[in-house]
Amino acid sequence: MYENLKIKLNSLKNNKAFEFTVVAVIIISALEIGAKTFNLPDSAISATYILDSFITLFFLFEISVRFIADDDKKQFFKKGWNVFDTLVVAISLIPIDDSEMALLARLVRVFRVLRMVSVVPELRVLRNSLIKALPQLGYVVLLMFIIFYIYAAVGSFIFKDINPTLWGDIAISMLTLFRIMTFEDWTDIQYETMEVYPLSWIFYLTFIFFTAFAFLNMVIGIVVNVMEEEHRSAKAEKEPTLKELQDELREIKALLEQRDS
Amino acid sequence: MYENLKIKLNSLKNNKAFEFTVVAVIIISALEIGAKTFNLPDSAISATYILDSFITLFFLFEISVRFIADDDKKQFFKKGWNVFDTLVVAISLIPIDDSEMALLARLVRVFRVLRMVSVVPELRVLRNSLIKALPQLGYVVLLMFIIFYIYAAVGSFIFKDINPTLWGDIAISMLTLFRIMTFEDWTDIQYETMEVYPLSWIFYLTFIFFTAFAFLNMVIGIVVNVMEEEHRSAKAEKEPTLKELQDELREIKALLEQRDS
Amino acid sequence: MYENLKIKLNSLKNNKAFEFTVVAVIIISALEIGAKTFNLPDSAISATYILDSFITLFFLFEISVRFIADDDKKQFFKKGWNVFDTLVVAISLIPIDDSEMALLARLVRVFRVLRMVSVVPELRVLRNSLIKALPQLGYVVLLMFIIFYIYAAVGSFIFKDINPTLWGDIAISMLTLFRIMTFEDWTDIQYETMEVYPLSWIFYLTFIFFTAFAFLNMVIGIVVNVMEEEHRSAKAEKEPTLKELQDELREIKALLEQRDS
Amino acid sequence: MYENLKIKLNSLKNNKAFEFTVVAVIIISALEIGAKTFNLPDSAISATYILDSFITLFFLFEISVRFIADDDKKQFFKKGWNVFDTLVVAISLIPIDDSEMALLARLVRVFRVLRMVSVVPELRVLRNSLIKALPQLGYVVLLMFIIFYIYAAVGSFIFKDINPTLWGDIAISMLTLFRIMTFEDWTDIQYETMEVYPLSWIFYLTFIFFTAFAFLNMVIGIVVNVMEEEHRSAKAEKEPTLKELQDELREIKALLEQRDS
Repeated sequence: MYENLKIKLNSLKNNKAFEFTVVAVIIISALEIGAKTFNLPDSAISATYILDSFITLFFLFEISVRFIADDDKKQFFKKGWNVFDTLVVAISLIPIDDSEMALLARLVRVFRVLRMVSVVPELRVLRNSLIKALPQLGYVVLLMFIIFYIYAAVGSFIFKDINPTLWGDIAISMLTLFRIMTFEDWTDIQYETMEVYPLSWIFYLTFIFFTAFAFLNMVIGIVVNVMEEEHRSAKAEKEPTLKELQDELREIKALLEQRDS
Repeated sequence: MYENLKIKLNSLKNNKAFEFTVVAVIIISALEIGAKTFNLPDSAISATYILDSFITLFFLFEISVRFIADDDKKQFFKKGWNVFDTLVVAISLIPIDDSEMALLARLVRVFRVLRMVSVVPELRVLRNSLIKALPQLGYVVLLMFIIFYIYAAVGSFIFKDINPTLWGDIAISMLTLFRIMTFEDWTDIQYETMEVYPLSWIFYLTFIFFTAFAFLNMVIGIVVNVMEEEHRSAKAEKEPTLKELQDELREIKALLEQRDS
Repeated sequence: MYENLKIKLNSLKNNKAFEFTVVAVIIISALEIGAKTFNLPDSAISATYILDSFITLFFLFEISVRFIADDDKKQFFKKGWNVFDTLVVAISLIPIDDSEMALLARLVRVFRVLRMVSVVPELRVLRNSLIKALPQLGYVVLLMFIIFYIYAAVGSFIFKDINPTLWGDIAISMLTLFRIMTFEDWTDIQYETMEVYPLSWIFYLTFIFFTAFAFLNMVIGIVVNVMEEEHRSAKAEKEPTLKELQDELREIKALLEQRDS
Repeated sequence: MYENLKIKLNSLKNNKAFEFTVVAVIIISALEIGAKTFNLPDSAISATYILDSFITLFFLFEISVRFIADDDKKQFFKKGWNVFDTLVVAISLIPIDDSEMALLARLVRVFRVLRMVSVVPELRVLRNSLIKALPQLGYVVLLMFIIFYIYAAVGSFIFKDINPTLWGDIAISMLTLFRIMTFEDWTDIQYETMEVYPLSWIFYLTFIFFTAFAFLNMVIGIVVNVMEEEHRSAKAEKEPTLKELQDELREIKALLEQRDS
């Protein structure tokens, strides 16, 4: 009987109509979250409570279906999105009254929208390509962090007394340096320190050059990686290399010459 | 007789001089629109009225020519630009007195300049390539919208009481997030919320990283698409693949070996 | 005797030491221009007068050498840089006293530094590649201009009364739009008009999207152009195409099959 | 005995555990530097003194090991990083009391973090690729400098009296131009000068166009360089060219035709 249920749920899970219902409910839950940020009349607020319960129950139902339909229960929780979905549903189920926690409950509901990424296959592909690109960038990010760390330490040592809000300690300095990297009112910071240390523009200019160069390298690195992958996938189509063609040509020549002699 | 007119108009439509006249009238109408934004003497204003009527009549004449010269009347209004042209001319013909509507009439006349894009062939190619690139970007744009939506909801829930002008509801929050994405005085917004929630810099930094990464992906996606298309069009020139060359080589070898035995 | 002089000057012109002297004098003239922007003591100012005369005379000498050494006097003034050099030297020779003109004389001297670009061969190559890239960009620039023109006209019509300093006429509006394109305090402009027209954010967002997209297209266009040129120059090395190889293979096969029969 | 020590130290140097210890000590020294920027209790400050001495001694030990283990003592100091490491350790050893010098000592300790780049092999590769890319960019940077220099001279001559803080001399003007290049409040500078010279927007717009174009060229130059290098390294795998294949084909054809006659 359990096997029977499993087969039925599996066919439900792979049903197009069911998939669209899931996407529709996620969109409704997203709209509800958006609506809640406006000042609503009381009647609308109570409507959202009912809608909320319905969405929570639907998600509970959907994750149960997926869990029961799955062949290997152990593997189920090894997939990041299943754990994420279960957590979001579980926290939604906890009855919350306290106002502090109400904010948390709201935030958890916001993350329901992220489920969109796991449900729409094209977005999942995109997300995977993003995650794949990350480790290749690892060392550029590390280099950038070292640049930030050194400049933040130097900035904090030298400029601390000029403006502790910007250069108070190494953490605040790194935030300030990120601001400089985005060119956000960076000259205000520069002019302020140049009044005490007239040569401090060297600090800012070298920092901007180094980070811009590291960023450029990162972008070019990604482009080259993507192109190489394209190249490799083209080769996987069993195209022979020019070297292989040359080898075959030489075999033919050997055959001909052999016969001539 | 109608057929006669049609052939004559068709030859007029394809006449180089006529094409240049159309472009010239569009440029004159553009200059007139520009001139109207300056404070003109009364005599010049009345001159623009006459010019306006002339341009409207010319455009009416030109679209009539194109419509009559067209073989298939049903297909005529299936092309977006024909509908656009007809609409612009039609609205220009409505006599408008009310001041509110006068602004609308002016705006419609501004869109006449857009006709430039449909008349100059090179611009039409450009516009087509832009429109072609859009669907390929669809999913990155969707991903970006989801990122914006989630951050706007979270931002609205947490920061609403700090600054309702920036975080009042989800729509305003999305506009604020777009501002942050362009790095426009984003630290002012950040410092304001950091006074209440000192850790809110995480909100801004993760948002900037996610959007920058999605944007980078979009750019790289376009570059790769464009290159692939170049590659494919190069292949369409009936160049054999290396695999095909290898096959022919093997046939030759087979011929040789066959005779040897 | 004139021929004799010509040969001597030609050998001087192509002399490495002479070339370095020219570069050195240009650098000295650049340094002198830089020095003049500082507040100099009187003695230094009179020194710059002497230096100025010397540089002018040297440039006069150098351009004479180049003119006399040139075989075809008619062609000489068809090269842009020769005209530019002659003009700069000629204007430097005019004795100027009036303070208004003194500024002009100074500016002309600044352009001497530009001679660096024509003298150093690597920079000339760079400049040529820049000039070559321009016509290919022509239509994207035209499209961008149309976008600017339409938005400037619309902006001027609608926002003129809100802030005439920013939207007074179509010329000022285009400058304001360029400012928005560089993201320079664009939200200040936006918030100001949103108080009167709450939907005016559509104006700014669509403008930013269109210009960003056109700009992206321009960049990608350049990249693809550069790559294609690389590709074509690789082909110019007399590499056969795959098609040509296939043709030769077929000839061989025909030869073999012919003999078999 | 010395040879014995050298072999032992060499095996120590190449020991994985030793390498990790070095990285760990560098990270600890980085954390210590970060910690010092916060307001620490007295006990923690004295703890950092002890930690500081330990780190200095460890680095002294490590550099000695590397020096003794090295086969060719003369070559040792020809490598930039070895000189850098020795200098950092040497300066750390100098006992410093004076407050002025204390800042310098702190700064030297900050550069210890840079040792990370020489110790982690992947970062060293990255750094090398950065340094290799520089000379190829040389001429674009020179062109950019010339653009900056000319505009700074012109700006200083014309705008000096309007705002000496921004346009006082050629050095300050170049800093102001760099600010304009980063789009940092550049319209404030523009509006200020436009009040005196209404056409001065030409100065800013042409400057932005030229620098943007030069920058674009630089980025594209790097991308093309990287791609070419990929291409060349692919060729180095002993792939024959199409030309070589054609030559072999022709030899075969000659063999066949020769026999036919």
